[in-house]
Order: sequence, then structure tokens, then C-alpha cells
Amino acid sequence: MTASNIQLTSTISEDNTLTLALQDIDMPQPATDEVVIRIEAAPLNPSDLAVLFSAADMTTATQSGTAQRPVLTADVPAQYMPSLKTRVGKATPVGNEGAGTVVAAGSSPAAQALMGKMVAVIGGGTYRQYIAANVQSCLPLKTGTTAKQGASSFVNPLTALAMVATMRAEGHKAIVHAAAASNLGQMLNRICITDGVDLVNIVRKEEQATLLREMGAKYIVNSSSETFLADLTAAIIETGATIAFDPIGGGQLTSDILNCMEAAVSRDMKEHSVYGSDTFKQVYIYGALNRGPITLNRNFGFAWGINGFLLFNALGKLGTETVVAMRQRVADEITTTFASHYTHEVSLAEVLQLQSVAGYAKQATGEKYLITAQK
Amino acid sequence: MTASNIQLTSTISEDNTLTLALQDIDMPQPATDEVVIRIEAAPLNPSDLAVLFSAADMTTATQSGTAQRPVLTADVPAQYMPSLKTRVGKATPVGNEGAGTVVAAGSSPAAQALMGKMVAVIGGGTYRQYIAANVQSCLPLKTGTTAKQGASSFVNPLTALAMVATMRAEGHKAIVHAAAASNLGQMLNRICITDGVDLVNIVRKEEQATLLREMGAKYIVNSSSETFLADLTAAIIETGATIAFDPIGGGQLTSDILNCMEAAVSRDMKEHSVYGSDTFKQVYIYGALNRGPITLNRNFGFAWGINGFLLFNALGKLGTETVVAMRQRVADEITTTFASHYTHEVSLAEVLQLQSVAGYAKQATGEKYLITAQK
Repeated sequence: MTASNIQLTSTISEDNTLTLALQDIDMPQPATDEVVIRIEAAPLNPSDLAVLFSAADMTTATQSGTAQRPVLTADVPAQYMPSLKTRVGKATPVGNEGAGTVVAAGSSPAAQALMGKMVAVIGGGTYRQYIAANVQSCLPLKTGTTAKQGASSFVNPLTALAMVATMRAEGHKAIVHAAAASNLGQMLNRICITDGVDLVNIVRKEEQATLLREMGAKYIVNSSSETFLADLTAAIIETGATIAFDPIGGGQLTSDILNCMEAAVSRDMKEHSVYGSDTFKQVYIYGALNRGPITLNRNFGFAWGINGFLLFNALGKLGTETVVAMRQRVADEITTTFASHYTHEVSLAEVLQLQSVAGYAKQATGEKYLITAQK
Repeated sequence: MTASNIQLTSTISEDNTLTLALQDIDMPQPATDEVVIRIEAAPLNPSDLAVLFSAADMTTATQSGTAQRPVLTADVPAQYMPSLKTRVGKATPVGNEGAGTVVAAGSSPAAQALMGKMVAVIGGGTYRQYIAANVQSCLPLKTGTTAKQGASSFVNPLTALAMVATMRAEGHKAIVHAAAASNLGQMLNRICITDGVDLVNIVRKEEQATLLREMGAKYIVNSSSETFLADLTAAIIETGATIAFDPIGGGQLTSDILNCMEAAVSRDMKEHSVYGSDTFKQVYIYGALNRGPITLNRNFGFAWGINGFLLFNALGKLGTETVVAMRQRVADEITTTFASHYTHEVSLAEVLQLQSVAGYAKQATGEKYLITAQK
């Protein structure tokens, strides 16, 4: 264990510039209920990119500094600056989760019990070499689990589990999922197969359909197909899905889903109603892959809801007992149900190279970056 | 009491034609728990127009028949016909509410108690001369209340009361209301003044602002003003409103309201969050005055909901006890808090004249039609 520690920070300055850089920081000392984790692997999730890039226009990015300490700068369009005023001038740590070995522990029994263990950790800026974390933020992984296997133990697994739990809590019986070939989508597919929940997977490319089919998915519809709306309606009729999760937002997919649900549930109505069917239809928007306007073409009656879906709010609604059970399931099934697949591994310095940015900023389905902070 | 009875019906036929006509029907006989009401006044609400016109293009309307028995026909665009299949060939009665005198009563004590009384009635196609209704659908009006005063005792009054009750039930403290100069909006304004609830009234014309100001409204913003967004944000900051009701739907007002709420609630945030504020923001869309697409420009974080709002679903959520109290309040305050203002009175035959249609189809704020079925 060396005395050096480095973290990646994202800073917006008064002159409308975003600066991404590596910063030398002190080696943390654990408080009573804390441990210090040597972060060995941390994923680049879409939610991390939102913190990393903020509102900057990354097509203007330029690289400077050295190979060991690269610096990236990019312009922030002036119209976004007012909404960022609480960020200006602050070197913001990045990284929502990661995994690694506990190398120091506070005096509490809970902290001491983790000494030397491989744990996953949530929160606090995990794109660094050593982090102090409260034991509550740590998930002990099974013996033999690697940091790479455990790096994505929170965001995607708990989001996918929260979707299924929300479906149950709100009285629906099957799920529609958009951008379904993502790492999260693949996890959701495995959970639904295991739990016997019908899942309608919406993809936009045939190879994504093939991938999911090979993973056992039964209902797959391609939004690029000319028969998309009819296909989606048919799948909703077969499954009875009245709740959907959509990470895209912009465009009219949310509207299409609600209209297909309405067509499905009203197909057997005996009496016409100007208010549409009584069956409640729900879409949760859990991301912003398309930041453009959401267009709703409202042919879905009056029994519907569209809500933002944020993991921590959803977990709050589901309650502690459910969440504790979810976390244990993740630890137990991290190499199966909750396995993540990474296509690229980058060091902290490589995260700040233009060629890496060009790759991970695309957020292409099937591509996922892992940061190996000790390299 | 004559033996003649006439009702207004709306029929869509296989050949994509809407036909509105008067139909001779039998004088009803009351069942045990029913009364027969001579309908003396019934309002033309937006929700009635949806049943009356359905999806027909009323610019194609032509009038035939006689002065006493006019017939209106109009084209239904072919693309809407599939969604109307359960209506095709059925002469659908129109009219959600009305008021009049009980002229016959079933044998039950509850029915007998209403004999000779002036009552308001909900449901069943009130655009007719005599209607049989279950006593549960009747609201006895105070002695001296006229049919014209009592004609709108359900739809607008209960909707306005349900908005305030929903605000309370869902933990909000003030309301934003769009199209606020409507009859419903004026009622909501009176309820909020009486109940001490802050209400932000959105109007689109200066004369509507003046009208509401003269009625004691404190917060009025004009969506046609260049400073609309700043004005709305300021009013939301002053009132703390985080729930809105919007009868328009199409366009971007729903989005504007959510963005102004987010600007208001996040103005004091110390820490920047890519997920926006934690304060939950809700818009209920309770009409479709604009049937065009709803455009959401999402700068309002992840803690938000947009839902359809339908009176009977809302009452179901609020529970019987609340609804019973609401109905009694309406009867007690029908000439004050729940007073409706009509600009035109038309007979059943006059409803079917092109010049009347041209008037009430506009759904202009401040204009409201009353049907006097006995004339």
C-alpha cells in the first residue's frame, strides 16, 4: 500500500469551460464505521457520464497535459450555465460505484469484519484509487468474486430488481422495456426469466434481437421495423404488460408504448368510452439517452401515468426489507443473473484521452467501459 | 305531464358518418329505487362534446330535417373509425348532467322522498325531456334553487373539489391551474379563496386576468406574455405550488409548468445534482382542449409525474366519505361557490342547428351553453 492516491474530477468554471483532470488527494483514514477500499474496477455508467460531462459539448473537447496526467477541456453552452451555478468552481468527484479490496478498517466490529474482503461500494466518487466508505455503502462479495465481476453490483442490478419490484407493488403483471439489449436490459431479462415474469424487449437493431433471443428472451420487438406498432401491441396482448421502463425519453417511444397498451387493453371493450379504457397504463422514464423533446400523441385515454424513475427514490418507496433482500441476491448471483460484460478496460488516465471519450460517449448498446484505477 | 319524450342521440354509421338527431322515446317508468326527472336544464360541457361529436370533423357538418326535428351529419375521418367500432350503429344518448323536477318516483322511501323536489342528476344521457335515474345519481337541491342554477352540480363542482382534495391527499400545498378563467376555473378560485389554498391561475388573455382579479384571485399569470415563464416561476416560488391541473394537454404548457416548478424548488439547492431536485412535481391533464401532441422539454429532473385525471377515478381514490361531503357542499353552495354562468340557452332542437354548433364547438373561455329541454 503506497501513500499516493489519485481521483478523477470534473470542474465547470465561470468561463463556460469543463475541465476533466486527475487530482492528487490524501490517502483516506477510516472513521469508526468506515473502511478504506482500494478501487480495482469501476464501470462507466450513463449516470456517471452525466456527472462527468455535465452539459458540456464534447465535440469541442481538446486534450492537453501529459500522458500520465491528461487534461480534457470542453465548452459548456452558455444557456446551460445558470442551471449549473451550484457546480461552478467545484472539483466534482465522479463515479457512482466500483469494487476492490478493503485495505484499512475503522474500529467498529462491522468495519473490522470487512478487513481484507472484496467488496462492492456505492457512492462518493469511485473513479479514484482509494476511497473511504461507510460499511452501509459496502456489499461484501462472495469469496472468489473478482473486482471486475463485482464492479457493477449496485446501479444496474438494483435498478433492474427495482423495476420488477415496482411492477409487483403497483399491481402490474408484465413489463415492457425499451433499449432492452443494454447491460441493464440483459440483467432484467435474466431476472424475469428466473422469476417467471413476462418481459417485452424493445430493441432497434436485428443483432440486438438476436442477442436477446440467444439469452432466452421470448418477446422481442424491433422499433426500426415497419410492423413495430402492430408487433408491440401483439406482444402486450400476449403478456398483459401495462407498465414500461424507458431509458430514452426523447422522441415518441413513450407515447407509442402507451398507445399500444391502450389498443391492447381496449380491444375487448363492449362499450365505447370517450375517456378510453379504465386499465391504468404506466411508463417510467429512467434515463435521458435522447435529450430531445418527448412527444406524446395522446390516443391512450385518461388512465395513464408517466413518471421519472430514479433508483434511490424507487428503493425508498419499496422499503428497507425489500432492499436488503435485493442486495443479498446481487451478491449471491453476481456472476450469473447480475453479470456485466465490458468491451473496454481503461486506466484513470485513459478515461481522459480523446479516443476513449469518443468510444464511451457514444453509449452504444453492447459497449461498456470499465475503469481499472490501479493500472 | 304529457306522454311525449324526446332525446338527443349521436350515431356513427359504417359509412364514416356522424348523425345527430332527436329521437322519440317512451316515457320512463321508475323502478323501485328510481325517480323520473323532467329535465329543465342541462349544460354543454367539453366532456359532452366529446360524446356528441366523437371524432367527426365538424367543419363538414350539414343540416337537414325540419326546424322541429333538425338532423346534423358530418364526416368521420377514416383513420378514427377502428377506435370507434364499439359505437358504430348505436344511437348514443348524450349529456352527463342536468337538473329538473321529480315527476314520478319508485316505491322505495328514498325515491318517494324526492317526489316533487328539484334535483340535479348525473349520468344516463340528460339531453332529453324525461329521464329515469337511481336515487344515488340524484342530488336534492335546496328549496328555491332553480333548474338552471342546479344544472351543473356534478361535473365542474366535483372536479374542482377533487382537485383540492387530491392536492391535500398527495401532500402538496398550492395549485397551478391552466385555462383558469373557465367556469371550472372560477369555481376552483372560489373554493381556494374559501379554503385558504393558494392558486396560481394561468390565463391567455388580459380580459381573463381581469375577470379573475375581480373575483379575488391573487396569483394570475398570462401565458401570452413575454415574461410568462418568469412570472409563473415567481408565482410558484411565492405559493410553493407543486401540483398542477391542465385541461389543454396539447402543446408545451405541461412542460413549461414542470420546468418552472423545478426552477422554483431548485433555486436554493446547495449541491448540484444531475437528477434535479428531490421535490416531487405533478401535473394532471384533465382534458384535451388541444388534441395535438404534448411536447415535454425535460429540464425538470427525475422527481415528476404526469397523469391523466378523470373525475370518477379521482373520486374513487378519495373515498366515499369525502365524496358524500363534497356533494352536500355543492348542494349547500350551488348559488355561490359553485355558481355557473351561461351565455346562451338553447332548446334540444337548437342544439342541432349549425349556428349553435359554430358557437359551442369553439369551447371559448367564458362562453357556456345551457340546454332547456322543455322549450
